[in-house]
Amino acid sequence: MLKNMSEIGIAIAGLGVVGAETARQLTKKNTELHSRAGTAPVLRAVSARTQKDRGFDASGIDFVPDATALAARNDIDIVVELIGGSDGVAFDLCQAALKQGKHVVTANKAMIAHHGHLLAQRAEDANVQLCFEAAVAGGIPALKLLREGLSGNEIERVTGILNGTCNYILTEMTQTGRGFDEVLREAQEKGYAEAEPSFDIDGIDAAHKLSILAALAYGEQVNFPSVNISGIRAITDIDIAYAGDLGFVIKLLGSAGRGRVPTVQPWLVARDSQLAKIDGALNAVAFDAEPVRSIVCTGPGAGAGPTASAVLADIIDIARGRRSFAFGRPAASLKSNGDLKAVPPGRFYLRVMVRDETGVLSAITSILRDHQISVESMLQKSQSANKPVPLVLTMHETAHEPVAAACAELRGQSFVDGDVLALPVLDSA
Amino acid sequence: MLKNMSEIGIAIAGLGVVGAETARQLTKKNTELHSRAGTAPVLRAVSARTQKDRGFDASGIDFVPDATALAARNDIDIVVELIGGSDGVAFDLCQAALKQGKHVVTANKAMIAHHGHLLAQRAEDANVQLCFEAAVAGGIPALKLLREGLSGNEIERVTGILNGTCNYILTEMTQTGRGFDEVLREAQEKGYAEAEPSFDIDGIDAAHKLSILAALAYGEQVNFPSVNISGIRAITDIDIAYAGDLGFVIKLLGSAGRGRVPTVQPWLVARDSQLAKIDGALNAVAFDAEPVRSIVCTGPGAGAGPTASAVLADIIDIARGRRSFAFGRPAASLKSNGDLKAVPPGRFYLRVMVRDETGVLSAITSILRDHQISVESMLQKSQSANKPVPLVLTMHETAHEPVAAACAELRGQSFVDGDVLALPVLDSA
Repeated sequence: MLKNMSEIGIAIAGLGVVGAETARQLTKKNTELHSRAGTAPVLRAVSARTQKDRGFDASGIDFVPDATALAARNDIDIVVELIGGSDGVAFDLCQAALKQGKHVVTANKAMIAHHGHLLAQRAEDANVQLCFEAAVAGGIPALKLLREGLSGNEIERVTGILNGTCNYILTEMTQTGRGFDEVLREAQEKGYAEAEPSFDIDGIDAAHKLSILAALAYGEQVNFPSVNISGIRAITDIDIAYAGDLGFVIKLLGSAGRGRVPTVQPWLVARDSQLAKIDGALNAVAFDAEPVRSIVCTGPGAGAGPTASAVLADIIDIARGRRSFAFGRPAASLKSNGDLKAVPPGRFYLRVMVRDETGVLSAITSILRDHQISVESMLQKSQSANKPVPLVLTMHETAHEPVAAACAELRGQSFVDGDVLALPVLDSA
Repeated sequence: MLKNMSEIGIAIAGLGVVGAETARQLTKKNTELHSRAGTAPVLRAVSARTQKDRGFDASGIDFVPDATALAARNDIDIVVELIGGSDGVAFDLCQAALKQGKHVVTANKAMIAHHGHLLAQRAEDANVQLCFEAAVAGGIPALKLLREGLSGNEIERVTGILNGTCNYILTEMTQTGRGFDEVLREAQEKGYAEAEPSFDIDGIDAAHKLSILAALAYGEQVNFPSVNISGIRAITDIDIAYAGDLGFVIKLLGSAGRGRVPTVQPWLVARDSQLAKIDGALNAVAFDAEPVRSIVCTGPGAGAGPTASAVLADIIDIARGRRSFAFGRPAASLKSNGDLKAVPPGRFYLRVMVRDETGVLSAITSILRDHQISVESMLQKSQSANKPVPLVLTMHETAHEPVAAACAELRGQSFVDGDVLALPVLDSA
């Protein structure tokens, strides 16, 4: 019953930090991995743009400049795709490999978010495995946990800190009181953020991961366009400070409730909750489910070692003959999630930059009242005659729509001078 | 490749809260579980001391008074053992079931801690699965995480809050300042602690779980007698208060480092670390490993729903044909862990109840000096003429042996009037 072939041939396409680390682990720890896998995983070929020393023993390993050529080799059982990008070479290679009856292991969240359903179908057609543990939450085995560890549960909600760059920036802002631009610049210098940071800080990367988690949690076809996304650019040091005064920290969360529109957005998270304590570049994934109630898993969300750990686990599962459908069920049985409801009502934080004029408070509260929004508390720390001042308030439970409508109306007011920001509030997580 | 039989027959032995909840889930959610399992899991027989309504639809399900009779039935593929106890009926049933070629799923940590290696061999002989996810950390899929999710890693250390009763008592003491006896009594009244609480509060239950985790982490034969165990009876409200003043909380941790003696004992845990924040009846398991670095998973450590979740996951894995060796590798390849080294040196907390006499401080510090122990800080809050007073100090890094020797010597001093307690200190976790 337990698969016991003598060797399993592996090719790695893409030798960036994750690819090189995976190659290092496969070559250096071969004996130990063999005992875990029951079969010797043998790295037979690698592909990258340039051939150079990458810290692993490349003797006996073919260097193949054209990644897609790996798909056709008879000595390869598993193609490990670590090139990245939703389309292009990565997608071509994965399609070709599956067509040739090879298992595919990938860390490519963008490709799975965009083409996961198609690739899962192709894998089933070819009776091979498509594995992407490394695509979500780095070293945390979040997909295995959800797909197998919690397979007896109905998932009610998946909530996660899914982007280490955003979490690092928000943590730094919280701990040092510095502004977004300054912290972002420093994160870029330290290599925690890309030179073109939009993918991370605008929430796209977190949304890719969330769409994959939601598909697994609810038995749905992965549907990246359904995710409602807003990133962290609008968060100022003022918001961090006011949130702190109210007993909260600001976190970018991906959140997908059963039957609800998945969202990636900054939240006010109660300071004593588990997710509030996940600092720096860590990731966390929380599952609310029945009958298990709540499981939270934290760990490094990125980096060579943690990502290689997830890639190796997929390789060992394949070598051991442990088979799963890519999204937990046959691709043909995955539902299309066309009829998602809006997220449920909740409390909100509102920050409006206003001119310090007479009657402003009254004007704002009447706009909120007109939208049936009830104010819970209000804060205004300091006033400065010639500069716009922040007005911060929290609302009692309300739906998202009136909040969005009130924000739009506020933005049109002459006394508003700057951004209007509304963030949902999470009291426990 | 994915197993696709039409039905898989299940028997549950033991209908306490976990057994009844598992039966409820299997009967109520059959369609959903079928889609996860690819096969319909059908509950065909149950066994318990008495036959009564337990909140699930028992129509069509045989009631069998003699649990061991379940092993012989041809319509049963999986025997779910939820009777408990390391020996007796539970162990007889599991051995008989494996011999008859039936898969065994169990939540029985005592039985696996004592007989896990033998049962794993029997399961391999019969080419069936022995699964015990529910035996460790309740609803947290800790074993799957370790065995499969982190299969590409070398585990360096496993640390866990593995007993909900102890964690509940320590949390209550911390939050309310009350003493051990009072909190234990209340926990017993609320049903969080047993009438005979020794199994939990003396650390046996946590040690069962730790021995299983250590076996999986290090590829060793499960070896319960190797665990060094001390429970929480000696912890007083004084210790909780002093630990708090020093920036720590007290937690009962199971800890097993690679090649080291596994220990269950109370620790001072830095208040801002992740494990310090696991309150009440929650469990947590932390893995330090290479290349993933650190993964922490938290969730409910006991209770009907969380335990049933783990049992169902094992059933679905079996139904799906996902096979694993019980301890991650063939039983014959598991090492005997005979040559374990002592735990590495660390900082310690020492509390001595002394008579308030002249020269006591000097006598204590010279005893410590004689054992080459260097004092880091000392605290003495209040003094009372006619009652013994606590003297609390922390030590710089030292090995365990001199601490134990110093404690023994202190206990023999005339000025010592009451317990001498030394606890290790965990600065980050």
